[in-house]
Amino acid sequence: MAFPRGEDLKVTLEGAAKNYRAVWFENGRVKMIDQRTLPHRFEIVDFGRCAEVAEAIRNMTVRGAPSIGAAAAYGMALASLEELDLAEAARLLKASRPTANDLFFAVDHMLRQIDLGCDLVEAGDRYADDIVQRCSLIGEHGAALIKNGDRVMTHCNAGALASVDVGTALAPIRVAWYAGKRIFVYVSETRPRLQGMRLTAWELANEGIPHSIIADGASGHFMKDDIDMIIVGADRIAGNGDFANKIGTYEKAVLAKELGIPFYAAAPISTFDFSIDSGQKIPIENRDEGEILEIEGVRIAPKTSRALNPAFDVTPCKFVEGFITEVGVLAPGDIHKIRGGASDF
Amino acid sequence: MAFPRGEDLKVTLEGAAKNYRAVWFENGRVKMIDQRTLPHRFEIVDFGRCAEVAEAIRNMTVRGAPSIGAAAAYGMALASLEELDLAEAARLLKASRPTANDLFFAVDHMLRQIDLGCDLVEAGDRYADDIVQRCSLIGEHGAALIKNGDRVMTHCNAGALASVDVGTALAPIRVAWYAGKRIFVYVSETRPRLQGMRLTAWELANEGIPHSIIADGASGHFMKDDIDMIIVGADRIAGNGDFANKIGTYEKAVLAKELGIPFYAAAPISTFDFSIDSGQKIPIENRDEGEILEIEGVRIAPKTSRALNPAFDVTPCKFVEGFITEVGVLAPGDIHKIRGGASDF
Repeated sequence: MAFPRGEDLKVTLEGAAKNYRAVWFENGRVKMIDQRTLPHRFEIVDFGRCAEVAEAIRNMTVRGAPSIGAAAAYGMALASLEELDLAEAARLLKASRPTANDLFFAVDHMLRQIDLGCDLVEAGDRYADDIVQRCSLIGEHGAALIKNGDRVMTHCNAGALASVDVGTALAPIRVAWYAGKRIFVYVSETRPRLQGMRLTAWELANEGIPHSIIADGASGHFMKDDIDMIIVGADRIAGNGDFANKIGTYEKAVLAKELGIPFYAAAPISTFDFSIDSGQKIPIENRDEGEILEIEGVRIAPKTSRALNPAFDVTPCKFVEGFITEVGVLAPGDIHKIRGGASDF
Repeated sequence: MAFPRGEDLKVTLEGAAKNYRAVWFENGRVKMIDQRTLPHRFEIVDFGRCAEVAEAIRNMTVRGAPSIGAAAAYGMALASLEELDLAEAARLLKASRPTANDLFFAVDHMLRQIDLGCDLVEAGDRYADDIVQRCSLIGEHGAALIKNGDRVMTHCNAGALASVDVGTALAPIRVAWYAGKRIFVYVSETRPRLQGMRLTAWELANEGIPHSIIADGASGHFMKDDIDMIIVGADRIAGNGDFANKIGTYEKAVLAKELGIPFYAAAPISTFDFSIDSGQKIPIENRDEGEILEIEGVRIAPKTSRALNPAFDVTPCKFVEGFITEVGVLAPGDIHKIRGGASDF
């Protein structure tokens, strides 16, 4: 299915609209939008070494589970051009961040392409194209859930930036919007790194989709009367439907259940991890406390205070109305049906 | 009951420990700690005019329901020294912020002191002393709920800064700590104004009480395994036990119920508003969107994005285990017993 070009990531630079992917391969280098400097500076960075890509994942130049997967796939391509030990390169990339399943999925996929004798640059491009195609389908399936006039809440950024292009949680919102549905998006800012305020709002603003940013703690207040549905992304989905996503997701899921609001997670099959049967087995990354204690390089907290900074939380499957995937919207009890498809693309 | 002096607000300045109140009257002027510049700059500001006090409440130089009440009481004292129309001064002060009941309670209390022929400076001091005494009792009653080893979560700042001295939600924590109980406090940072990270952490750090700051959205994650009880303050408590408090409170209450964690609100009788029978009738202040879109004066959000910024939310009484007041810990169904006491101090 061809996804309408107008729904790709739009960026307006010096008055001209352009389309970008979050990460791509060009002239022997991995290029990516630096997601740390948005929304005020749009910068493309590029890397010629696998180790640099691993560092870019670690320091969140590129983030979002599917985009991390694509970056890692291209990292493997660079490793082959560098004539590195590919098993060692795979280990390096896999060690960059612990939670998102797509990272491991993509690296394992690339290792299989080596066994098949494929060119890894071409394999990386196929992986990225495939993600975009799958996200387009997520958009189609998810948009069918959105009614004209709906007010949709999302969290963090599960947009084009997070998934090479199109988006996971934002894909249904985009498709609904381009289909002419009047929608309004509540964007929780997503402390500590503010990916909601910095990235999701930027994507929505670029496309003219009506939205407001709210403090994370205001989600429950607005959910009482003003929210018709919630769509978030996912970093890893266990075999039982428990899933890890950006810290703050769990709270919204519990509130959605309390208030009768349907709560969806949107993700491609690459995010499902059938090797674990419970969300309790998903490793949760703890990031530097400075992300909490300082904002924009300015220390906010008292000198002697410390912080705890888990990057993700786990939402039990009982709070999920459905998983919006490329093969359709699945109830948590039905995800075993895609177990085979998750082994590889 | 005399509250041990060591449990007053401690501030260490140039190596010397000093005790302060959040607001007091001295030499014909209202003095207060400027709560906007903490934790890095400790500044005392002072005002000689009632209108300046109203502005200090509005711009949150002083904040926290009981401290707002005391500031307003002193504002009435200034109005009497200025020989202003006291009914007009009362209207001006009451218009400064809409949600906290203590503001209206204190101004009405002062109007009654006029009728009684009292000196308003002395009446203001009595009002402030009384709040401190009541907070001390809140500390005693609440500390009895805290067990050795408990991990307590709080939100925003309901400490000495918020209530002239001692605190409301922080009073039980302080009393438990000075009684030798090992406790640990989880401080949610409280976007947008970060009163948790700036003020509560500062108060706890000054006293050496172990604590960690967390992102607001991480509350649910930590509540799964790491929190034994939650104590928050309150800005207004309706006759049925629904109460308004800093935005984000409602979410914690719903999560506490889901996870079986006792959830308490600590407040003096001046916070109860028996003129309304439901939290739905509490006016919620919407503050400037710039508090969300900018941090430390730096614009974070995309240029064209807007924000919604309610300062408070309402927690239905069904989520409250008890109200910690100066007359004891009351179940929501029992608060009618203090209806008479709430009419005045």
